[in-house]
Amino acid sequence: MSYNSFGHMFRMTTFGESHGPALGCVVDGCPPGIQLTAAEIQAYLDKRKPGQSRFTTQRREPDEVKILSGVFEDERTGGQVTTGTPIALVIENVDQRSKDYSAIRDKFRPGHADFTYFAKYGVRDYRGGGRSSARETAARVAAGAIARKIIPNVTVRGALIQIGPHKIDRTHWNWDEVDRNPFFTPDAAAVQPWSAYLDEVRKAGSSAGAIVEVVATGVPPGWGAPLYGKLDQDIAAAMMSINAVKGVEIGAGFAAALLAGEENADEMRMRHGKAEFSTNHAGGILGGISTGQEIVVRFAVKPTSSILSPRKTVTATGENTDIVTTGRHDPCVGIRAVPVGEAMLAIVLADHFLRHRGQTGAQ
Amino acid sequence: MSYNSFGHMFRMTTFGESHGPALGCVVDGCPPGIQLTAAEIQAYLDKRKPGQSRFTTQRREPDEVKILSGVFEDERTGGQVTTGTPIALVIENVDQRSKDYSAIRDKFRPGHADFTYFAKYGVRDYRGGGRSSARETAARVAAGAIARKIIPNVTVRGALIQIGPHKIDRTHWNWDEVDRNPFFTPDAAAVQPWSAYLDEVRKAGSSAGAIVEVVATGVPPGWGAPLYGKLDQDIAAAMMSINAVKGVEIGAGFAAALLAGEENADEMRMRHGKAEFSTNHAGGILGGISTGQEIVVRFAVKPTSSILSPRKTVTATGENTDIVTTGRHDPCVGIRAVPVGEAMLAIVLADHFLRHRGQTGAQ
Amino acid sequence: MSYNSFGHMFRMTTFGESHGPALGCVVDGCPPGIQLTAAEIQAYLDKRKPGQSRFTTQRREPDEVKILSGVFEDERTGGQVTTGTPIALVIENVDQRSKDYSAIRDKFRPGHADFTYFAKYGVRDYRGGGRSSARETAARVAAGAIARKIIPNVTVRGALIQIGPHKIDRTHWNWDEVDRNPFFTPDAAAVQPWSAYLDEVRKAGSSAGAIVEVVATGVPPGWGAPLYGKLDQDIAAAMMSINAVKGVEIGAGFAAALLAGEENADEMRMRHGKAEFSTNHAGGILGGISTGQEIVVRFAVKPTSSILSPRKTVTATGENTDIVTTGRHDPCVGIRAVPVGEAMLAIVLADHFLRHRGQTGAQ
Amino acid sequence: MSYNSFGHMFRMTTFGESHGPALGCVVDGCPPGIQLTAAEIQAYLDKRKPGQSRFTTQRREPDEVKILSGVFEDERTGGQVTTGTPIALVIENVDQRSKDYSAIRDKFRPGHADFTYFAKYGVRDYRGGGRSSARETAARVAAGAIARKIIPNVTVRGALIQIGPHKIDRTHWNWDEVDRNPFFTPDAAAVQPWSAYLDEVRKAGSSAGAIVEVVATGVPPGWGAPLYGKLDQDIAAAMMSINAVKGVEIGAGFAAALLAGEENADEMRMRHGKAEFSTNHAGGILGGISTGQEIVVRFAVKPTSSILSPRKTVTATGENTDIVTTGRHDPCVGIRAVPVGEAMLAIVLADHFLRHRGQTGAQ
Repeated sequence: MSYNSFGHMFRMTTFGESHGPALGCVVDGCPPGIQLTAAEIQAYLDKRKPGQSRFTTQRREPDEVKILSGVFEDERTGGQVTTGTPIALVIENVDQRSKDYSAIRDKFRPGHADFTYFAKYGVRDYRGGGRSSARETAARVAAGAIARKIIPNVTVRGALIQIGPHKIDRTHWNWDEVDRNPFFTPDAAAVQPWSAYLDEVRKAGSSAGAIVEVVATGVPPGWGAPLYGKLDQDIAAAMMSINAVKGVEIGAGFAAALLAGEENADEMRMRHGKAEFSTNHAGGILGGISTGQEIVVRFAVKPTSSILSPRKTVTATGENTDIVTTGRHDPCVGIRAVPVGEAMLAIVLADHFLRHRGQTGAQ
Repeated sequence: MSYNSFGHMFRMTTFGESHGPALGCVVDGCPPGIQLTAAEIQAYLDKRKPGQSRFTTQRREPDEVKILSGVFEDERTGGQVTTGTPIALVIENVDQRSKDYSAIRDKFRPGHADFTYFAKYGVRDYRGGGRSSARETAARVAAGAIARKIIPNVTVRGALIQIGPHKIDRTHWNWDEVDRNPFFTPDAAAVQPWSAYLDEVRKAGSSAGAIVEVVATGVPPGWGAPLYGKLDQDIAAAMMSINAVKGVEIGAGFAAALLAGEENADEMRMRHGKAEFSTNHAGGILGGISTGQEIVVRFAVKPTSSILSPRKTVTATGENTDIVTTGRHDPCVGIRAVPVGEAMLAIVLADHFLRHRGQTGAQ
Repeated sequence: MSYNSFGHMFRMTTFGESHGPALGCVVDGCPPGIQLTAAEIQAYLDKRKPGQSRFTTQRREPDEVKILSGVFEDERTGGQVTTGTPIALVIENVDQRSKDYSAIRDKFRPGHADFTYFAKYGVRDYRGGGRSSARETAARVAAGAIARKIIPNVTVRGALIQIGPHKIDRTHWNWDEVDRNPFFTPDAAAVQPWSAYLDEVRKAGSSAGAIVEVVATGVPPGWGAPLYGKLDQDIAAAMMSINAVKGVEIGAGFAAALLAGEENADEMRMRHGKAEFSTNHAGGILGGISTGQEIVVRFAVKPTSSILSPRKTVTATGENTDIVTTGRHDPCVGIRAVPVGEAMLAIVLADHFLRHRGQTGAQ
Repeated sequence: MSYNSFGHMFRMTTFGESHGPALGCVVDGCPPGIQLTAAEIQAYLDKRKPGQSRFTTQRREPDEVKILSGVFEDERTGGQVTTGTPIALVIENVDQRSKDYSAIRDKFRPGHADFTYFAKYGVRDYRGGGRSSARETAARVAAGAIARKIIPNVTVRGALIQIGPHKIDRTHWNWDEVDRNPFFTPDAAAVQPWSAYLDEVRKAGSSAGAIVEVVATGVPPGWGAPLYGKLDQDIAAAMMSINAVKGVEIGAGFAAALLAGEENADEMRMRHGKAEFSTNHAGGILGGISTGQEIVVRFAVKPTSSILSPRKTVTATGENTDIVTTGRHDPCVGIRAVPVGEAMLAIVLADHFLRHRGQTGAQ
């Protein structure tokens, strides 16, 4: 058991607070002999990095990753490879302005974990939420970059499909579009209305929720370990562990409840000597094991709780008060949740690949 | 790591197939000195037991539980108590009609785990789905009965709130109603239309999906262990591990994406010397730790995949074919998922109570 | 975390008390497609079974094992194979004479776990030691039989090499001899003097300690996972978990402390294109990873604590008293520890084979 | 599962190689509200630090520890306390002279893990043994310093009791002596002969083995979790995981095999209203649970494998060769194993305290 680790054969242990000296993770179980550089990890961190548009927090963090262990610069090949030993990654916190938080030192921000951490631990790290801050997700993105390299034939991609009440038009879906706009949306037509909507939300001192979809292509049939190492069980855990996530669904998800049995159960036909499915209501998972189809996951992100509108709350010493959360915050934390969701799916898949290989010998 | 265990300090390991000699579980970590009889466990099993109405499978299983270990009949007090050692529970399979399945021995039933188990293990246990059968959930309900005794001040209750497109009217909610109808619904007015709807579905050789809501009352603030032992993370895993579940949400869930920040973040006020929340969009969990409010979980159950309508599929030897799943099946597997959802929530909470007590010393 | 499970990828969870209705285990993680019958498991249980000579307890337990799950009788091949799902094994307790223990119901037997279980759990299962009884090792032997089938190229054999002060002559070592005498000793010349010694010990109402050696042949280089999944670490844990074991050593063991560096470090030379070692002080393990040599483990078993000689002790209610442990006991519990030690080594090796295959892809 | 973590409720994950940029660990599960400074940890690191006498390696490493997370400088009290979140500790490697190792880049040093790591991972980190170096034990000592603070009523002390064939005289035992000599020996009379012996060993280009004893005082009855979370099982694993350790024993250990039953089983008598034992052959543990007596552990450390005497070996490319290991090495690695053994025992005890408190509610 462990409180800050995720995964089994591929296992990430994260550490660090929003305003401590550094955050990072130890990645344990990575197979040996994989080419790995800090630059490759950095590319994913840069995608999640704050301050890249007016729709994310203005905190300035370079989020530069250092590899402290687990790789070896092989002088003979000139390349750097994993050694099979634990890979420690550290990211320094550069832009910690703890004083930003002095006004809320004794107040619990509604919708935040301030109250519950204090109730549990009796200690209040008021500096930007301490351990409960979404800054921790940088460590997940870094670990996810390593996870991807373990399953090179699998592509994991995420997209924002809804902000507040505004959904994308799925017929516009274009993966290439995702990296071209500040919302990671695959629908180019959504960019302008979403921008307008979020500007309005920010002006109102409010915030917006969102829905993220993450898809894995190339997962062969057979990954997942029933009954309590089910692939969808671990995906649900992975996504629900992300800050501000309140719901997770696979394939048809909640809409499956509305379908008739004959609509929902995906039919099969042989094609080119392989079983193929006519539809994918299952989202690529049946009985907790991958079917070989695309794995399709969606999760809901609540609106950022740090807002300028004054809210009723209480203090650590038990007095009623009001709170206004100034400082630097994402008006829609769902946007930066896209690379985090990708990373978590990659981590689950890498873990299950290794577990599957271990138990069955499949390569 | 383990494939068939769930939980950490309170840990259940289940075993058994639909048509093997028996199924059961080992419950490890139960504190000592708790009064426990087989009859108490049986009461919960009887609630889940098949064949109690025309809306569940007609397989006749008494689901009688035997305790093989972990309790001690103290001659002095006359009572039977847990000893702190593992509690093994066994339920014999009585009504195994394996021959029912000979027609589908080589065919993969669409929507079932037949294809994926075969892809993973290379072995086909065609007898009622083998390990992937929902019969395994009897072991969960038995373990859940023990979990409840560890957290006597917590009440865990479940209810069916939607069948197919038909939702309950939440203003009718009455917990007392739940045990008076075959649907575990808290809305008495839903019983008649749901009965009519399901009769129609059965006649059409089809099946229906459903949504279950499970609520825990009495959980104090502080349970849950960020970041990867979050209470909601473990609840999501628990619910997603139940057969046929495709989505899980906490509190406002997916609807949180639609809310503005100031609507979603539950405000706080002191009352009788305690912090109280004005609303519960959080579903009783913030930052992965319980707030002290009701914990509210919903999950979506897909329509039963075993249906009489003929469907296209393939065989284990790679030929196209059609399949009709005769035999005894639940037309809406979501109904019997209610006691299973309750059990899983109780198991997660018992586990987190023990973990919390261990780390912080809280009683 | 779990209190009654051992192993990771190959994981055994045991349950049961000395005088409860049954004991057994759930074996999780066994690869699919392995031929497995109850008879194969029974053969190992018979080796450990009590009452086979006057040197072991006279309790009459057939120790008949039943497989409740995890195998499938494939009608097409006629054979029974593992399915990749958990294998539950149950052994009924037949010869429970709880009344034997009424005289000691409130007394703590010196050298036994009576006092510590009561101190921990506040419950006293006085019937033959309850969970602390060596009867539990039957479940280990059963699980060990399955472990062996996962690593068919590895041979695991155990032998008794010392009883009380009487050591074998290692130049007499003959593995074939082990199954021909009641002591599992490889030295035929030891049988007569050991018999005489143990008869004397029994007549004196005393008991004797012993040393067991277990050897695994055929383990390839590379198994083991530094730093905290070291092969020798897990072996040490496995052996120390056996009832009455007080010491464990690998290779030269404690004697290594006496050697000079150049004596201890095993030299290497190429032979037939493979690196070979000139000696095996390392006992087949360097840096926690197998070298490809024989793995050599020894463990010390203390003398049985249940003896006829009266001993000073206290009662559960805090009074001084004397105790005489009548009933049926092994005069040298080290004898029956031989098949248990074998089983535990097989379990560790099967687990590490699967872990190694998972992380590195080695077959 | 995880390869580089140790413990359950109190869990340490270490990382780092001998000649990488840094090593360290993440300590997870530490209770909140404990006063903790880097200086307190440093004090233990300084004890283990190399270069403190001519009998340890001359590598110059300040081993300065930095705390990256998990503590909070509470401005109100001025003190720094743990927050209940993971504590990351980092120690930079300062004196890495990788070029020292170029001569052995392709040669496997006999007695070292060079061969087995290469066999397992296919990668050779020749710089001072890479991950297999005893430098990693600095991370253990740091984690052990935190463990001690969780169990303030327990004192854990270690001592060197044998170097090569030279044992201490146990009647001289004086704990105060341990910190006054370079051997951590409690027998002042051993210092001179051991110095002379080790000087001779060094001159001969050889090395010496040793035996360490670690003792914990103040552990109450009841810690430990049978059957596979036994206190002695976890202690055996902890000690065997230390570099160069080949044997572990508890209490009478291997000598217990020589005792008669009535000698070995420690008798009990009430004293001041508490059960007390007349002797401690059990070493403070019965049935895997603490008795309340001193916990006594001994482990054997093989002689350092890095020696100046030329030895036969092979290369990574399969050729016979000879090797001389120059560079900076401990002539008796057992000396610096003393603080490491203490740390590991403290870690096991802190873990078991938290587990015991979780399962039973004991404070």
